[in-house]
Amino acid sequence: MTAKILVMPGDGVGPEICREAVRVLDALASDHGLDIELDEALVGGAAIDAEGDPLPEASLAAAREADAVLFGAIGGPAWDEQPRDKRPESGLLRLRSELGLFANLRPAILYPQLAHVSALKPEIVAGLDIMIVRELTGGIYFGKPSGLHTTASGRREAYNTMRYDEAEIERIGRAAFDTARARSGRLCSVDKANVLDVSQLWRDIMNGLAGDYPDVELTHMYVDNAAMQLVRAPKQFDTVVTGNLFGDILSDAAAMLTGSIGMLPSASMDAAGKGLYEPVHGSAPDIAGQGVANPLAIILSVAMMLRYTLGRADLAAKVENAVGYALDRGLRTRDIMDDETQMASTQEMGGAIVDML
Amino acid sequence: MTAKILVMPGDGVGPEICREAVRVLDALASDHGLDIELDEALVGGAAIDAEGDPLPEASLAAAREADAVLFGAIGGPAWDEQPRDKRPESGLLRLRSELGLFANLRPAILYPQLAHVSALKPEIVAGLDIMIVRELTGGIYFGKPSGLHTTASGRREAYNTMRYDEAEIERIGRAAFDTARARSGRLCSVDKANVLDVSQLWRDIMNGLAGDYPDVELTHMYVDNAAMQLVRAPKQFDTVVTGNLFGDILSDAAAMLTGSIGMLPSASMDAAGKGLYEPVHGSAPDIAGQGVANPLAIILSVAMMLRYTLGRADLAAKVENAVGYALDRGLRTRDIMDDETQMASTQEMGGAIVDML
Ligand SMILES: CC(C)[C@H](C(=O)O)[C@@H](O)C(=O)O
Ligand SMILES: CC(C)[C@H](C(=O)O)[C@@H](O)C(=O)O
Repeated sequence: MTAKILVMPGDGVGPEICREAVRVLDALASDHGLDIELDEALVGGAAIDAEGDPLPEASLAAAREADAVLFGAIGGPAWDEQPRDKRPESGLLRLRSELGLFANLRPAILYPQLAHVSALKPEIVAGLDIMIVRELTGGIYFGKPSGLHTTASGRREAYNTMRYDEAEIERIGRAAFDTARARSGRLCSVDKANVLDVSQLWRDIMNGLAGDYPDVELTHMYVDNAAMQLVRAPKQFDTVVTGNLFGDILSDAAAMLTGSIGMLPSASMDAAGKGLYEPVHGSAPDIAGQGVANPLAIILSVAMMLRYTLGRADLAAKVENAVGYALDRGLRTRDIMDDETQMASTQEMGGAIVDML
Repeated sequence: MTAKILVMPGDGVGPEICREAVRVLDALASDHGLDIELDEALVGGAAIDAEGDPLPEASLAAAREADAVLFGAIGGPAWDEQPRDKRPESGLLRLRSELGLFANLRPAILYPQLAHVSALKPEIVAGLDIMIVRELTGGIYFGKPSGLHTTASGRREAYNTMRYDEAEIERIGRAAFDTARARSGRLCSVDKANVLDVSQLWRDIMNGLAGDYPDVELTHMYVDNAAMQLVRAPKQFDTVVTGNLFGDILSDAAAMLTGSIGMLPSASMDAAGKGLYEPVHGSAPDIAGQGVANPLAIILSVAMMLRYTLGRADLAAKVENAVGYALDRGLRTRDIMDDETQMASTQEMGGAIVDML
């Protein structure tokens, strides 16, 4: 069956990196029997500029139709002063919510070829390979009530609600236990159970699930300690599961530990295997349009798509191996370059991957 | 006028490090004209064991009476299974709230003598000197409603409320602008204004205050990016201001960047100059009672107390210099030791500081 893939380039470097990812998909289709059909839709700032809405109806409908979404990046200073529902980010948040993409998988991997790019000492990060499983459709991002009001005494007061029910926690918990099982069998659940009621329920449910996964070792850590431990000794972690807000913060910190955030893909999955695949990095408006952005994060997101949605682990491995070869051969975009290596443009890097498939 | 200082040793290594801090205070009183009166009170797990309450009435009353509180550390596995109001942490949270200690100052300083202890490369952290100003009596730590209920469909659901009003934000904002003014004049406000209503109000108020501080340069950063930037290039920060939850996470990460979290003090201030002073590190139950804990964080907390509450910047400098001398002479507790240096016990380190005052 032909799989439908919707490409949503978005803003900043989004379009130029998506172009390289599409070349990879096209090559897999023409030379390796990948049966796909590509479509494209507006999202983010580009959609605001064209239609006044960061997620136009047609884009949402196309995303619902698709088996997988390949997402570039969104946002930029042009839209920063807009009210929140007229900002690029809200398009992405709505997309996650409308599609039920509750499980966000964010690997933080140190590529041995890039070990020296990290801000951390080599002995601290060599071999780093963490998978952060972030809940993506609940918590304080979506909890009601939220808003701004004026109190009786005439003061403005703003509020957001962090909220999780047991079904939401159980479902992300199972995704995380399954992930840990397929990896080293170690799962660390991060919360703030010494302060938050939400975290107490979170911890309770995780402990309950542990009985169904006797082969997985579950530990708990407070979020402040987790932020410290990520800096002090990141290799103690294998799979980490946490809520939407803590996951946002910790996954970015973990990605940055590797020094090669331009290399890191992510997957946001629903319950049926549909996924949205996007780089961990953002839209990088400062370098947009210059042809220097690193396309490897989105190309590796294509690999995740092949593995998780398209059932083509064989092709996923092909793409990942091609990325390894490119690095071995010293090809580097500007973000990961050093004296010994060869500066490649976005397009040259994409072309190299296509050639090596 | 005699200043009243209440010592609250708490749990784990708390009592043994407090003992050294008290020796320093006693020496300043007998040899350097510091006019103080010391009292002691139970808090945390020690108070739960003795009186069934992590903050007994008598302790709270004594803290109200005091001009400053010297706080050791709280918590440990012995109390981890208790309901939240019967846990050590809730004693500290109530103390902060009851005393109105809204401004938490957490320096992250790299001591040049300890540069190699950091997990980060020397060039990334050399000279690091960040001050994090964390709001401490509001936000999701204290917001109502919070709790656990069962929904109509029979599911357990837990919720917490992140809430700030403009007066709370303005007051921590002013504390932060004042702090930045006395430092380099650069203030970075950290929020999640692309997602949270609370952060939009936060940003609004900070922008409004900027007019009163033309000599301070205000910037804004999203919390996920801040967590990344702390790892990538921490020296870009000088003063950082943020809410209670983000401050909890970021200040721990920042402290750990220095590699010498056993060296870092903190101050929690009310509007009138009263303060609670405590180390950034926790109760470290695994090493409690062994005489190996580093007393320098609490001794440097005494220095902050001298400067901020007792009006004795001269003595604060004396204490800080003594710590510098001890490090220069190669004295090290176990947490900051290496081959070239001399292992000192908690008591030896405390004694060395007293000798060098
Ligand atoms: C753009 C923003 C709303 C988003 C988030 O906070 O989830 C981003 O930071 C991410 O992590 O994908
Ligand atoms: C012990 C805990 C409640 C506390 C907090 O979260 O504020 C601690 O982590 C801190 O930062 O002082």
